[in-house]
Amino acid sequence: MRVDGTMMRTIWPSGHGAVRIIDQTRLPHELVTLELKTLDDAAHAIKAMLVRGAPLIGAAAAYGVALALKADPCDASLEHAVRVLAATRPTAINLRWALERARREIGRHMPVDRVPVAWRLAASICDEDVAANRALGQHGLSLIRDRVRGGKPVNILTHCNAGWLAAVDIGTATAPIYAAHDAGIAVHVWVDETRPRNQGAGLTAWELGQHGVPHTVIVDNAGGHLMQHGLVDLVIVGTDRTTARGDVANKIGTYLKALAARDNEVPFHVALPSPSIDWQLADGVAEIPIEQRDATEVTHVSGRSADGRIVSVRVTPEVSPAGNYAFDVTPARLVTGLITERGLCAASREGLLGLFPEHRAAHGEGHRT
Amino acid sequence: MRVDGTMMRTIWPSGHGAVRIIDQTRLPHELVTLELKTLDDAAHAIKAMLVRGAPLIGAAAAYGVALALKADPCDASLEHAVRVLAATRPTAINLRWALERARREIGRHMPVDRVPVAWRLAASICDEDVAANRALGQHGLSLIRDRVRGGKPVNILTHCNAGWLAAVDIGTATAPIYAAHDAGIAVHVWVDETRPRNQGAGLTAWELGQHGVPHTVIVDNAGGHLMQHGLVDLVIVGTDRTTARGDVANKIGTYLKALAARDNEVPFHVALPSPSIDWQLADGVAEIPIEQRDATEVTHVSGRSADGRIVSVRVTPEVSPAGNYAFDVTPARLVTGLITERGLCAASREGLLGLFPEHRAAHGEGHRT
Repeated sequence: MRVDGTMMRTIWPSGHGAVRIIDQTRLPHELVTLELKTLDDAAHAIKAMLVRGAPLIGAAAAYGVALALKADPCDASLEHAVRVLAATRPTAINLRWALERARREIGRHMPVDRVPVAWRLAASICDEDVAANRALGQHGLSLIRDRVRGGKPVNILTHCNAGWLAAVDIGTATAPIYAAHDAGIAVHVWVDETRPRNQGAGLTAWELGQHGVPHTVIVDNAGGHLMQHGLVDLVIVGTDRTTARGDVANKIGTYLKALAARDNEVPFHVALPSPSIDWQLADGVAEIPIEQRDATEVTHVSGRSADGRIVSVRVTPEVSPAGNYAFDVTPARLVTGLITERGLCAASREGLLGLFPEHRAAHGEGHRT
Repeated sequence: MRVDGTMMRTIWPSGHGAVRIIDQTRLPHELVTLELKTLDDAAHAIKAMLVRGAPLIGAAAAYGVALALKADPCDASLEHAVRVLAATRPTAINLRWALERARREIGRHMPVDRVPVAWRLAASICDEDVAANRALGQHGLSLIRDRVRGGKPVNILTHCNAGWLAAVDIGTATAPIYAAHDAGIAVHVWVDETRPRNQGAGLTAWELGQHGVPHTVIVDNAGGHLMQHGLVDLVIVGTDRTTARGDVANKIGTYLKALAARDNEVPFHVALPSPSIDWQLADGVAEIPIEQRDATEVTHVSGRSADGRIVSVRVTPEVSPAGNYAFDVTPARLVTGLITERGLCAASREGLLGLFPEHRAAHGEGHRT
């Protein structure tokens, strides 16, 4: 997408056996890129959320495997890389998907051949993500087009950042929004701040602004009120993992917006490239592991002070403990529909299998809860 | 309540024709008290939220009238004071209630007699608030006692600050919590941060900590997840205005918690001293005016930096606009019950009139939507 007028991705090979990323912890205040040279660099970038978002985590993990094999292409090194990278974040399924694919597709080559295979695989995962998001955007565009009433902008609410910063490019939840904007349809995005890490206020607002999409930042508390007053036409969010029956794990607070959408008859859609589907799980609330992160993300807020410095400030009393659950699960019953690279479908086992029939056979014998 | 071991109220006459308040914008970082000497001081304290919370706003307005009359006790001065103070905040009904009472009870005296009457009235409003909250706490205590299971603490979620800092003392939503804690019942409070002004993270956490009540600060997004996993036994919130049929205006985001409570069969109770009831209104969503505050409350967060200073930091891009709706309305259908100084009742016209029958006659002829 456009940044200061030039096209950019979130991750790319820098040409001498290293990988470059945007350090997303510095946004929206400054655009800083960083080089990852080792497996540890890649693992740190994922764990410390320099890169984040389910699709981008998958891509970064694939590059992390390539960096590990560059240092040592043996079987033990491949296994070690997969294990280290898999442990960085527990909730997003793309991470596991990318690592399993890397182990399978790279592991069948002789160690001496593995490095170029690993780089090509990482590049493929990136290109596939971009292609999937582009297709997803075109399918989702129809949902926005359907909500156009007269010359008024279509009001779309989104939570967290499932934008191009969360993917390699284009984004998932933002893909239909960018497609609509680029097609000349007037859209306006309500951007949930998304505490505790403020990915909405810091990242979604920034990327929409860079691309020229009208938007307004709101606190996470505001969405219900807006829906009660007819100010939201459509909700579109991303997902870190969607189960085979359509339960959706996404950033903490998504479930509350789904409840408000249902209560006010606002369509609630989830955008997901197929690597986000966990065909092994059915009941998301019971089965998806929810990451708990450091309490300082809740007790402290980081931003730019009047003198231009990036400062972290404590908002709670010193003695008060804080809890930090990073994701929640929205049951399929609250999801109006899913937007995938193959089209739109119901948030249900039949809906998903209709678009991805190759999972039907395996699935018939597997979990059926 | 206790602050550093000594008992304190949020507002009190300072003995030489002035009033002292706690400057709540400095909490939780420092306890600073301020003197209000004029009507303008009082109006500023309410508007800039040095004092906030529906009951405390009413008490501060009553003292504001006394300060105005001290300068000039004539009819025009009384009317001017009522007008200026009424314009400070639009949503809380206690403000209007206190001012109408002041106009009526003070206005019938000769100007020369008004100043002591005004001071006595303000003191009465304060004492009545404390007595009402104490009674309300005893009634609400039964709800907490009913949720005790074995030796485990009862987990109560609250939003914003309807604590003693929002009232003159004891608080409304916190009254049953303090009553339970003081009666030796183990309680644990999930404290919603309450963006954008962080009254939960800054005020509720602070006052619970001062009184020794176990609590954990969470972001506003987390409550739904906690309820899905059985970690909330009861929700208790306050209200800025409750309509005659039980619709509840409270801090933005309350509605989302009520939806989650309903979806997970968690009891959702609202604590309200009777001055918070607006007997003139029925449909809260359509009829209660919702204050919109400055966008900087959303774009900036204030806290204590590592070097000890209170710093405001920007969390959004410079170019991104922000919206700031201060309250939302929870429809009565989502409210399990109301806790008043006269007892518990259903969130309905009949429930409220059962406890406050003196409003039955007037009401029968009035709005019946």
